[in-house]
Amino acid sequence: MKLLEERIRKDGTVKAGNVLKVDSFLNHQMDIDLFNEMGKEWARLFADRKITKILTVEASGIGIACVAAQHFHVPVVFAKKSQSVNIDGEVYSTKIESFTHKRVYDVIVSKKFLHPEDHILIIDDFLANGCALEGLIDIVNKAGASVEGVGIAVEKGFQKGGDLIRSKGIRVESLAIVESMDDKTGEITFRS
Amino acid sequence: MKLLEERIRKDGTVKAGNVLKVDSFLNHQMDIDLFNEMGKEWARLFADRKITKILTVEASGIGIACVAAQHFHVPVVFAKKSQSVNIDGEVYSTKIESFTHKRVYDVIVSKKFLHPEDHILIIDDFLANGCALEGLIDIVNKAGASVEGVGIAVEKGFQKGGDLIRSKGIRVESLAIVESMDDKTGEITFRS
Repeated sequence: MKLLEERIRKDGTVKAGNVLKVDSFLNHQMDIDLFNEMGKEWARLFADRKITKILTVEASGIGIACVAAQHFHVPVVFAKKSQSVNIDGEVYSTKIESFTHKRVYDVIVSKKFLHPEDHILIIDDFLANGCALEGLIDIVNKAGASVEGVGIAVEKGFQKGGDLIRSKGIRVESLAIVESMDDKTGEITFRS
Repeated sequence: MKLLEERIRKDGTVKAGNVLKVDSFLNHQMDIDLFNEMGKEWARLFADRKITKILTVEASGIGIACVAAQHFHVPVVFAKKSQSVNIDGEVYSTKIESFTHKRVYDVIVSKKFLHPEDHILIIDDFLANGCALEGLIDIVNKAGASVEGVGIAVEKGFQKGGDLIRSKGIRVESLAIVESMDDKTGEITFRS
């Protein structure tokens, strides 16, 4: 998606340790008009799939998923990190290792909100090693629902996550795939 | 806001310990059409205020704030719980005690995204004892920006937060104010 690639080139910053900072428009300050265009693009890409619900994980996936959901006319469920005392009864749970925070989270979704008849589109801001995505897919599988596809804003194409998830036969539509980046020059190359 | 009150009556559940569960449409599964109506209502209520940015706090404020932001045409910034290694340089920080999780969080916003010339609308899902809101106001004050107002989905009118914040001269627009609720009968009374 040209619009997102151009925005990453303009406002993204490459840091040492394969860190791509897009916090001025994607995951700390959020450009809602951009999110709307991303939602429109996923709706176009997944037009052949029946989607009944969007699943994401807190925190930075939520804004993107909610704005995108307007183009699918379905509710959004977000997986919660760590058990909340306000979560009723039974939950589906999995463990997700965070690349950013260097720790393992328990991630839960109430059983009330995922059903075998659900057709799920998973949306998240980043795909790197695929841990968060594997966790969300695990939760959908535990619910007996189907994963119709995955919408990612920024995929780090040089990390294993994208290949790993696609090798399971799951359709992943990343709106920008970073092929390589250089923290010395700031150069970012996208997969074409 | 009648629409939200009716939805709380229909799908909300009162639990022991002053817990109002609205997780089927507000803060776990999210009804995006409802969020749009809430955003429209806040835009109407704050039409006389110049808003340049919306501030919220992860996780359950983010979806509401992002969808509402479409009616203000401004970016959203969310305050993050606990320091992330991906947050650059200097941040504004404060401490927030969570009623739900019974713990204290460090909450941060990058200094890049709040400026003295900003006119901030704070949006959150719940107002109970006011701790989260006081933390967000503290961050806006530290940035030298102005708080134009606060938009809350559900205020627990029988807890002290609403009075506390309004007594500082800050305009709080809660779309539903629960005056009382009874976990034995499930009855919920709203402030008229």
